[in-house]
Amino acid sequence: MNPSLEKQIPSGVADLFFNDAARKRAAENALAQTFARWGYSEIIPPMFEYYESLASAAGAELREEIYRFFDRDGRTLALRADFTIPIARIVGTKLYDRAMPLRFFYVGSVFRYEEPQAGIRREFTQAGIELIGAATPDADAEALALAVESLRALGLENFRFTLGSVAYLHALTRDLQLDDAARLALANAWRRKNISALNGLLDSLSLDPARRAALAQIPALAGDARVLDRAPAPNDDARAAIEHLRAVLARLAPMGIRDCLTIDLAENRGMAYYTGILFEAFVEGLGFSILSGGRYDNLVERFGPPLPAIGFAVGIERVLMAPRAARAQNRAGIAPDVIAQLPADFAAMQSARAAGQIVEVDVLNREADVLREFARVRGAREIFWRDGPKENL
Amino acid sequence: MNPSLEKQIPSGVADLFFNDAARKRAAENALAQTFARWGYSEIIPPMFEYYESLASAAGAELREEIYRFFDRDGRTLALRADFTIPIARIVGTKLYDRAMPLRFFYVGSVFRYEEPQAGIRREFTQAGIELIGAATPDADAEALALAVESLRALGLENFRFTLGSVAYLHALTRDLQLDDAARLALANAWRRKNISALNGLLDSLSLDPARRAALAQIPALAGDARVLDRAPAPNDDARAAIEHLRAVLARLAPMGIRDCLTIDLAENRGMAYYTGILFEAFVEGLGFSILSGGRYDNLVERFGPPLPAIGFAVGIERVLMAPRAARAQNRAGIAPDVIAQLPADFAAMQSARAAGQIVEVDVLNREADVLREFARVRGAREIFWRDGPKENL
Repeated sequence: MNPSLEKQIPSGVADLFFNDAARKRAAENALAQTFARWGYSEIIPPMFEYYESLASAAGAELREEIYRFFDRDGRTLALRADFTIPIARIVGTKLYDRAMPLRFFYVGSVFRYEEPQAGIRREFTQAGIELIGAATPDADAEALALAVESLRALGLENFRFTLGSVAYLHALTRDLQLDDAARLALANAWRRKNISALNGLLDSLSLDPARRAALAQIPALAGDARVLDRAPAPNDDARAAIEHLRAVLARLAPMGIRDCLTIDLAENRGMAYYTGILFEAFVEGLGFSILSGGRYDNLVERFGPPLPAIGFAVGIERVLMAPRAARAQNRAGIAPDVIAQLPADFAAMQSARAAGQIVEVDVLNREADVLREFARVRGAREIFWRDGPKENL
Repeated sequence: MNPSLEKQIPSGVADLFFNDAARKRAAENALAQTFARWGYSEIIPPMFEYYESLASAAGAELREEIYRFFDRDGRTLALRADFTIPIARIVGTKLYDRAMPLRFFYVGSVFRYEEPQAGIRREFTQAGIELIGAATPDADAEALALAVESLRALGLENFRFTLGSVAYLHALTRDLQLDDAARLALANAWRRKNISALNGLLDSLSLDPARRAALAQIPALAGDARVLDRAPAPNDDARAAIEHLRAVLARLAPMGIRDCLTIDLAENRGMAYYTGILFEAFVEGLGFSILSGGRYDNLVERFGPPLPAIGFAVGIERVLMAPRAARAQNRAGIAPDVIAQLPADFAAMQSARAAGQIVEVDVLNREADVLREFARVRGAREIFWRDGPKENL
């Protein structure tokens, strides 16, 4: 025991109270309500489970970041590092025979060990959805439309989505027999639009000139839907991936949400477990994405029968760094509507509460003048005085 | 890595979905709303923090149950095992100079290693409050009244509270110079109303006859407020503790909640960190308490200046075992109001959602007959057909 640690908290975790806690709850409730109205019901995986479940399906990067500890019977437990993998386990082992599609949403903490640096969170909150058992352009369009609607429900306005396709990038590279390191290097050169690294890589592979030109062109394939007309499609899979993107965009047009979308075919987030479209959202003034998602059709089959799936997650702490997010309900739980002096008219207090008002009782037996001043400082609008009389402030 | 564990979860944790997840959220929301209307605002401690913070203030029993693991810099971290200790740390280190009292509520998971047995939970959910900076009978009455109101908000009716006073038991034993083992044995004989163990213990202590009679009488001091007239009060502290209980009961009478209270002066929950009143609630048909709380005036000073405090916690999983709890909102997220066929009238869908309806889109391109049957099975009340027409089911 190190007594000097008693009054501290580890880096990467936070104590939330007052406005910070109220905004977090307001954001989570707004998202849960939105998800529910689109037909999604909540799913709650355990906060920890066997390391084997979480690690087997995780990419190398995520696996490194998992917090592990030992159960007293010697098994290795791990704190959940995302929701997608535990939900894939639940669907693959318990829900695979239900009518499809399944629509689930989740809200809660995830934990990742990240190197210490300013502002890094090791416990953070994700809220998101999984749409499982449908691989249609309609399913992709629903996930994107709900992602847009989620940011609107949070009170955000100036956000932009980038939309890419790991399926397309896979189609361009599948027949090249790249090893894992080369594939990751290529993915990273694309997503970072690092042209010199990309050219070096392409030089080191023996490619026919047409394929080399196609792969070199990827970082430039960003913009509106016309990008799809310019995208090279050297094989059927690449053509299918482009046609799928067109179909998704066609379905988004009548929903009025194509305007905030930018196609970026270089986007790939290191590929990870994605197999189809993938997307990220950014908001003005923040230098990181606040929402990310995509299709992963090979994940559920690690735990049970194969089932296609798409999902996205909102980073709650990141969203709350946008000043306009979850603004409306900031007041919740902070300023009381009524201060009641004891002995109080309990029935009057209870009916004010039933009407949604915050009624706070003076449990310190303050004198009338002190209580009136206290009520003003607390921002209350009314005092219920002892034995009945009420006063507006 | 043990691949056989990939598809399992450890004992003591659960996967929640469909109705179970919806009832949990409904219960949590009902409590959060009730707490907020009584002037409580949310506080969110980290899911893990330094073991030192959590263990230093925990009783021996709780300390044994804390899940520990190591940070990569060698420090010992621990999953929170309750909310009261982290909140005492936050108040003692960060909020001690605010206007008192502080009113906080919390909702979330806590983790305790318990020996494997049927139905035992190692991750479970607590929702509760802390009222800090007030030691008046009014503060105690508010905590009790809010506890009663919380169970009502959960839809429970046939519940009973037991009310005891650790301050009273301390007053009866403080001058006896008992060692820890004897004090715990006495506390346990009282709470279990184990008369033969109690008599054996009392025989082993050399007590004057009046004190022996007082201590032997404790298990019989259960019933309505008249118990307080019978309770022996051999010193000022004991008299003050009895008078305090009388004052609390007097304040509860006009709130109409004395009827569900039973005084039980043998109640003590092993004393732990309690210093004043303590209470537990039971509901018909469940053999364990669903809510417990009490006063602990010496806890915050472990982390900062001394501040009196009282609080209680509701066991969410336990409450949800009562069939009537959180019943009203079971439907949430399960049955859609509307099934919409694509290409859909997006504006109509969005206005139904804005009105609180659950609108689910068919992303599998079902034929009309199949879709109608599917909508009926899902419990939908309406279909929005392609391009406009609507049908009531």
